[in-house]
Amino acid sequence: MSVSIKNKVALIGGGVIKFGELFEKGFFDMMTEAYLNCLKSVDKGINPAKEIDAVWYGTIAGPSTGATVAQALGLIGKPVTRLENACATGSDTFRNACIAVASGLYDVVLAVAAEKMLDRPGGLIQAARFFPPYPWSYAITMPTAFALYYTRHMHVFGTTREHIAMVAVKNHEHGFLNPLSHFRRKITVDTVLNSPIVSWPFTLYDCCPITDGAAAAIVCKADLARKYTDSPVYVVGNGLSSDPAFMHLRTSFTSFPCVIESSRQAYKMAGITPKDVDFAELHDCFTGTELICYEDNGFCKKGEGGKFIEEGIPYLGAGKPVVNPSGGLKSHGHPIGATGIAQIVELFWQLRNEAGERQVKDSHIGLQQNVGGAGPQVCCTNILSNKKL
Amino acid sequence: MSVSIKNKVALIGGGVIKFGELFEKGFFDMMTEAYLNCLKSVDKGINPAKEIDAVWYGTIAGPSTGATVAQALGLIGKPVTRLENACATGSDTFRNACIAVASGLYDVVLAVAAEKMLDRPGGLIQAARFFPPYPWSYAITMPTAFALYYTRHMHVFGTTREHIAMVAVKNHEHGFLNPLSHFRRKITVDTVLNSPIVSWPFTLYDCCPITDGAAAAIVCKADLARKYTDSPVYVVGNGLSSDPAFMHLRTSFTSFPCVIESSRQAYKMAGITPKDVDFAELHDCFTGTELICYEDNGFCKKGEGGKFIEEGIPYLGAGKPVVNPSGGLKSHGHPIGATGIAQIVELFWQLRNEAGERQVKDSHIGLQQNVGGAGPQVCCTNILSNKKL
Repeated sequence: MSVSIKNKVALIGGGVIKFGELFEKGFFDMMTEAYLNCLKSVDKGINPAKEIDAVWYGTIAGPSTGATVAQALGLIGKPVTRLENACATGSDTFRNACIAVASGLYDVVLAVAAEKMLDRPGGLIQAARFFPPYPWSYAITMPTAFALYYTRHMHVFGTTREHIAMVAVKNHEHGFLNPLSHFRRKITVDTVLNSPIVSWPFTLYDCCPITDGAAAAIVCKADLARKYTDSPVYVVGNGLSSDPAFMHLRTSFTSFPCVIESSRQAYKMAGITPKDVDFAELHDCFTGTELICYEDNGFCKKGEGGKFIEEGIPYLGAGKPVVNPSGGLKSHGHPIGATGIAQIVELFWQLRNEAGERQVKDSHIGLQQNVGGAGPQVCCTNILSNKKL
Repeated sequence: MSVSIKNKVALIGGGVIKFGELFEKGFFDMMTEAYLNCLKSVDKGINPAKEIDAVWYGTIAGPSTGATVAQALGLIGKPVTRLENACATGSDTFRNACIAVASGLYDVVLAVAAEKMLDRPGGLIQAARFFPPYPWSYAITMPTAFALYYTRHMHVFGTTREHIAMVAVKNHEHGFLNPLSHFRRKITVDTVLNSPIVSWPFTLYDCCPITDGAAAAIVCKADLARKYTDSPVYVVGNGLSSDPAFMHLRTSFTSFPCVIESSRQAYKMAGITPKDVDFAELHDCFTGTELICYEDNGFCKKGEGGKFIEEGIPYLGAGKPVVNPSGGLKSHGHPIGATGIAQIVELFWQLRNEAGERQVKDSHIGLQQNVGGAGPQVCCTNILSNKKL
């Protein structure tokens, strides 16, 4: 009975700020900068006070009410809904903005997100309200939780410590080409292997950084898109799924069921297979997460993620799909709520052939995905294309 | 260009738990109880694992990921989005569930909310992340913020201390008839006037209690409603608006612009005027808030809220609209995120003639509304009817 929202929503603008340790910028400084960049990216211009009908705002640690965002962006009076979904906050904020446009209720919707992770009293951990009886209350931290998966993957499939070091090397190579990256430097497999252990097998260079950042995207009804740009990007698929919060209820430690289900929903809506994806922004919070996501998104067979990276397939200018041309969470950075929308903006640039040195050639379909929780608990996927599918 | 979602969504089930100081119940105990009550209320039954397509989950202080909710309710794998919007969290969660159904993407959506306010480390204030430069960081607490409005209202319009005491008396009279109320007792104007001052003119009995609670509602596509019940309730209007977060940017201290704009959107969608509303669940976080909301929702003229209550209009069995037949936040209770969905459930019962002793006779249209923030910053309104309008 349900009706797909495929092709009904168009992305007409996107903006981010340079990610990093932004002690000099406040939460709303960052958000406003991303928002203004986003407005500027709308080719034929937009009058935000008149034309933006509603806002979905994503954050983990930012202010509770949407009103603070309306005030900061000069959109007082507008409907603003605040949304949160662990590390999938940004992608789910974008998904909610798309659903709102598809409902017909609003013509133009802003999805905006920011995260100040480095200088808040109590920091992100306090803000994210990690309390019993969830696994992270019992000293299972993020790297530990994801390491439990990759160690099992190594045991079952023979993937190696080196395979995930290659993921880090690749993403830093891509991120080096991105002027907005938090860590814009190349590394080698040896850099990764010889850096301090965080939670075996993850060393410092297997873990994404703690990043401040903000991102914004504007979507509208597909039939209004040409009013704003001659190069709209269409939302062709999305999906959201959940896994158990408790470790003892998880059904697999070599795959992420919520990733499989979320991408299944998105592929089904788009009417495509994984082979049709030209490039993907995947969730490399830890290198092992990206490797397992190659498999769970169907980019290679289960257990062959190691082979996939070893053969150099996900590198820029190599095979298909290219994975994390932006540099990923590893090099570009991971300001939780903002990450997903920044990935959407990367898709916007890539699909409009505006990604400069890191442009994926002849790309028509991009996939964006966040995995959230201590180990996978939530996964949100969006698929975009530069033509209606 | 935008298309109303009027009549497209039907409410087919609703459940709450008895509100109160529920030290004996955990967050998910409360939520599960409300959810099971909600399932039982679906007249012709529902198979949640098969038929609930997605969940929107509202909370201020509860767990960050939707996955925890999916796990608790036996809905692992389903899309669950967590939403927050200060005291309007519940109404906006319901609004988002309705938008999702109206988009066509999902046939049946659960809106669920819970709030554990009394026994968390750090409590609600920590969880809600009140940090500078917002007014509440400078010792402007919730009662103080709303008192600034009612004192100005008294000065400009000659409303009195007694007028708002009558609001408290009315809501306790209604709440006495509600077996689910937190404070199920009648009070007099003298009780209110002689109780300790919290922030003048508000005394203890002008302030809603700190309440634990949970609530759940199930919506579906209107054309599927008869599969689940012969007495569906239709969503005919909704609206969301924001006011400045900073006190010095507020444009009025005798009215709440976000309430005016939010109800304007909802009335416009429903194609009705305030005179058509048979009863309303309004936001009496403080008695003065309810009084100002009489005016800003158009139930009486600006400045005549005092006369409106003095003439006994909003009392059960008296005039129209009856305001807060449930007992309101004052007597029924105010578990932040859950409050709005509990109001929706009250509308469900009233519009199906199932409200027992507190039934509003011959009611066809009910309005539900939450105001959030330190003083009004956000307002969300939903209008429901037992027939398509």
